[in-house]
Amino acid sequence: MPFKCTFRVHWVDTDVAGVMHFTNYLRYFEACEEEFYRSISLPFDEVRNEYGLRLPRVETHCNYKAPCRFNDLFDVVMRLREVGQKTITWDFEAIRQDGKVAADGYIKCIAVDSEWKAIALPQELAKLVQERGR
Amino acid sequence: MPFKCTFRVHWVDTDVAGVMHFTNYLRYFEACEEEFYRSISLPFDEVRNEYGLRLPRVETHCNYKAPCRFNDLFDVVMRLREVGQKTITWDFEAIRQDGKVAADGYIKCIAVDSEWKAIALPQELAKLVQERGR
Amino acid sequence: MPFKCTFRVHWVDTDVAGVMHFTNYLRYFEACEEEFYRSISLPFDEVRNEYGLRLPRVETHCNYKAPCRFNDLFDVVMRLREVGQKTITWDFEAIRQDGKVAADGYIKCIAVDSEWKAIALPQELAKLVQERGR
Amino acid sequence: MPFKCTFRVHWVDTDVAGVMHFTNYLRYFEACEEEFYRSISLPFDEVRNEYGLRLPRVETHCNYKAPCRFNDLFDVVMRLREVGQKTITWDFEAIRQDGKVAADGYIKCIAVDSEWKAIALPQELAKLVQERGR
Repeated sequence: MPFKCTFRVHWVDTDVAGVMHFTNYLRYFEACEEEFYRSISLPFDEVRNEYGLRLPRVETHCNYKAPCRFNDLFDVVMRLREVGQKTITWDFEAIRQDGKVAADGYIKCIAVDSEWKAIALPQELAKLVQERGR
Repeated sequence: MPFKCTFRVHWVDTDVAGVMHFTNYLRYFEACEEEFYRSISLPFDEVRNEYGLRLPRVETHCNYKAPCRFNDLFDVVMRLREVGQKTITWDFEAIRQDGKVAADGYIKCIAVDSEWKAIALPQELAKLVQERGR
Repeated sequence: MPFKCTFRVHWVDTDVAGVMHFTNYLRYFEACEEEFYRSISLPFDEVRNEYGLRLPRVETHCNYKAPCRFNDLFDVVMRLREVGQKTITWDFEAIRQDGKVAADGYIKCIAVDSEWKAIALPQELAKLVQERGR
Repeated sequence: MPFKCTFRVHWVDTDVAGVMHFTNYLRYFEACEEEFYRSISLPFDEVRNEYGLRLPRVETHCNYKAPCRFNDLFDVVMRLREVGQKTITWDFEAIRQDGKVAADGYIKCIAVDSEWKAIALPQELAKLVQERGR
């Protein structure tokens, strides 16, 4: 089952074109991902303490299909696409209240050590994400 | 010749991981694009007045290769990839002072009318971008 | 009765010092104010349509008392301080889950016309805020 | 002599009201302060290494007098107001190209240790700021 969060477009999220600035979709995608890790009792900052690694983004992609405006509510729906040896990839959709997809895309994270070098995901973490992220 | 701007990582651009937040690369890519249009005497907001259209982003992609940290200077290098009938696509690289590529990606813009419907780029604008954007 | 919203510190809200960037308290104060206007069925953008005016900030003040960190929940509590002839002033507190005040301050808004000139608040709006904002 | 930086209003700095979002003035004030410390060869992050302390903001104030819009250039002028035993206070003005003050205010920083407890400013740092900040 996909993981879902609902967000609101704040004044500060908008730009002079009257719509949410395109980078804010990625910010809300990440906020949804944070919420997922919280839901499995493993917030971002705990990953570091628990497994001695970080999960920075290595690739992001976003298609913008219909604008969200100030005050709009929208859902972010997040689905696990793939867990690789070192990476986790999530698909995202931002869906407006009228059912239209405002934006979709993906975020690929990579496990790195404190020197920012790619390392293998701990099996336990990989398994946890695979079980709970679908 | 590619278009280039130099930026500095500000405190507010960083996150608790000690590096520039991934969405800020896209913000600086856009800032470079703004500067390009300024350099051809056609700022974003003038496009609307001049041609009765807007150029929102329809697709963005970014690969994160090496982190930028507080205080780092970096260049954003921007190259025209393609001018389509309705779209303009730019390739970007963020290059650190040590010569390493911090991030690269592209931004595809689309011409829309005031109803946010895709329309053809005015020939004059397409030509201007093609001449000056390479 | 004060108006209250609960927010979460997102990754993007933090900086390299490991705490929420100081300007984000003001952003969440504003987000709470937005929610208040929504609660009286008068979102920011409707004010313009309804009364032909805008309510930009004319003065902000914030004291930072204890840091909020990634993942922290905090309440923003908002109390009406004063409705002047042209201005509305709100007091804010950001309160952490441990009961400590993270930050407090105020935001003073001013009614302006489309030329950005200060004008008197419509009596109806002043009354509405006074009744519902306490 | 006051310290001065020039900035440009980017698209992402604006909001649906067509002006720079009020919190961005404080972000540019801080960017100017960063530049000052750089100019005396003491970037924010070096302060920690050099003196074992941090300088978070303890109080900010801002008056908004005239809007800046997309593409506007503006100067941030920064003057040392006071160096206390534990604090440094800077006055700021954001001045548009037409000479109008867009915003003014102050930022008060406080020296804290790694536990976020207020401590005395090292004399050397206090002296350096007093000599170079005026």
